[in-house]
This record gives sequence, C-alpha cells and structure tokens, in this order.
Amino acid sequence: MVRKHSGDFHWQDVDVLEYKQDGAAPFRDVTRQVLFDSSDPPAQLRYFEVAPGGYTTLERHEHVHAVMVIRGRGQCLVGDRAYDIATHDLVDVPPMTWHQFRAAGDEPLGFLCLVPSTRDRPQMPGEEEVAGITRPLKK
Amino acid sequence: MVRKHSGDFHWQDVDVLEYKQDGAAPFRDVTRQVLFDSSDPPAQLRYFEVAPGGYTTLERHEHVHAVMVIRGRGQCLVGDRAYDIATHDLVDVPPMTWHQFRAAGDEPLGFLCLVPSTRDRPQMPGEEEVAGITRPLKK
Repeated sequence: MVRKHSGDFHWQDVDVLEYKQDGAAPFRDVTRQVLFDSSDPPAQLRYFEVAPGGYTTLERHEHVHAVMVIRGRGQCLVGDRAYDIATHDLVDVPPMTWHQFRAAGDEPLGFLCLVPSTRDRPQMPGEEEVAGITRPLKK
Repeated sequence: MVRKHSGDFHWQDVDVLEYKQDGAAPFRDVTRQVLFDSSDPPAQLRYFEVAPGGYTTLERHEHVHAVMVIRGRGQCLVGDRAYDIATHDLVDVPPMTWHQFRAAGDEPLGFLCLVPSTRDRPQMPGEEEVAGITRPLKK
C-alpha cells in the first residue's frame, strides 16, 4: 500500500526506465519512472528526471500533459514561449502544442507528468522547423 | 501554461478550499486545492494539507486514491495497517478500503491525490466500528 521514497528520487518497487524506447527522437540525459498506472482514471503518473544540461524531446501530440516540478529547476518551452520553472511549479501543455523541458546547467529538473493511458504518439518537427520553434528558449 | 508555486504550498490561480463541503464528516485542520482538473484522462489531481495534529475523515469508497506526499510527514491508515509516511512516499488506497491520513504533531502533512472525475461518495463507519478500524494507529 505504501512504497517508500528511498532517497534521491528513487522509490521502492519502481524501475528507472529509459526515457524513450525507440531512440529515434533526440533528447539528452532523461530517465522515466512510472509511479502510478491506473485503470480508473485511465491514466499514468510518471516521474521524469532531466540531468543538469539535459533536455527532453521537442514534440507535440493531441494528449495533454499535467506537470508538477518536484526537483530542481530549469526551463520549459510551451508553444511560443519559454518559462523558467522551479520546484512545485505547475505546467499545462495543451493539445498539439510544441513543448520541451530543459534542466538548468547546474541542477537536475525532476517533474511529475500525468497522461491518459491511451494516447497518440508524439510528432516531431522537421529539421528546418526546429530553430523557429525553439527561438523563445534563446531569448 | 505555467502556474508558479508562490511559496508555502500555494499556487498562482489555485484556490484554497475547504476539505469537505458538507460538514457532516469528522476531520480536523485540512485544506484542499485542485491543481489539475482534466477531461482526458477524466481525473483530478488535488493537493491536501493537514495541519500538525490534524487528520482527514476516516472513510472508504469504490474509487482508488493514488497519493504522493510532497510536504512533511505523518501516518496513514490503509486497511488493517498504519504506515509512517514522509515526503515523496507513495500510497495506493484500493477500492473499499478504510483509510485516513494524519499529520505529525509538529509538522504538516501535504500530499497529492489523484482521483477519477466521476467517483462514488465516501462511506463512513458507524460510531461503534471506528475503534476497531483505527486500532492499528494506536500501536
């Protein structure tokens, strides 16, 4: 009934997984842990951790993300804006909105992410689109 | 897209609500904040905070709770056992299982709780049943 936090954002009976199983999508230094896999609501609550200087894949999809940062700080890109984020901030990623999470250079970024169990596959931008989409990160 | 944590477990654009609206159920020093109210998955992610020495209602229901402690420490009763819980521990409350959360005497207990949007109403034990159900808390 209780799975103890065993320190350093690892949990009893929770495996530390690769962020993406395919390898086709670009990312850097990200791990994934599935904390809850529920049938009602049909949802997963995952914990992602991005090591200092790392980043998640730049992508979009129909399903939404409900995110709470629980470790460190960094930046997120959501649509046409970049936001500084830190522990306990909340992030809503709407449908079909380009997004990416980046850890600060000197600190990891760890966040909970709630998604529906059945969800569409992420889409990635073409190479020529990336610079335009990530422009707010460079400001 | 981003709702900042404004300190002390309050958030931009998130109201601090009464724990229960009816007032029929016994509890002490608990607040409720709805962090995410999602249609897909049809779920709510709430933050409950129990002040030092406070406790939630002793209850059970068909819907399950997926819980992560994010502040302080305390105890939870789940079924026929009491568990010490602290920040980042995970708790699964199965269907129709008596449960209650209690903060430590000298520290609040704050936790996230994921539930389906459509859920059955909690049942409470009869007065004569309470002592038997809460016995593990007294050990």
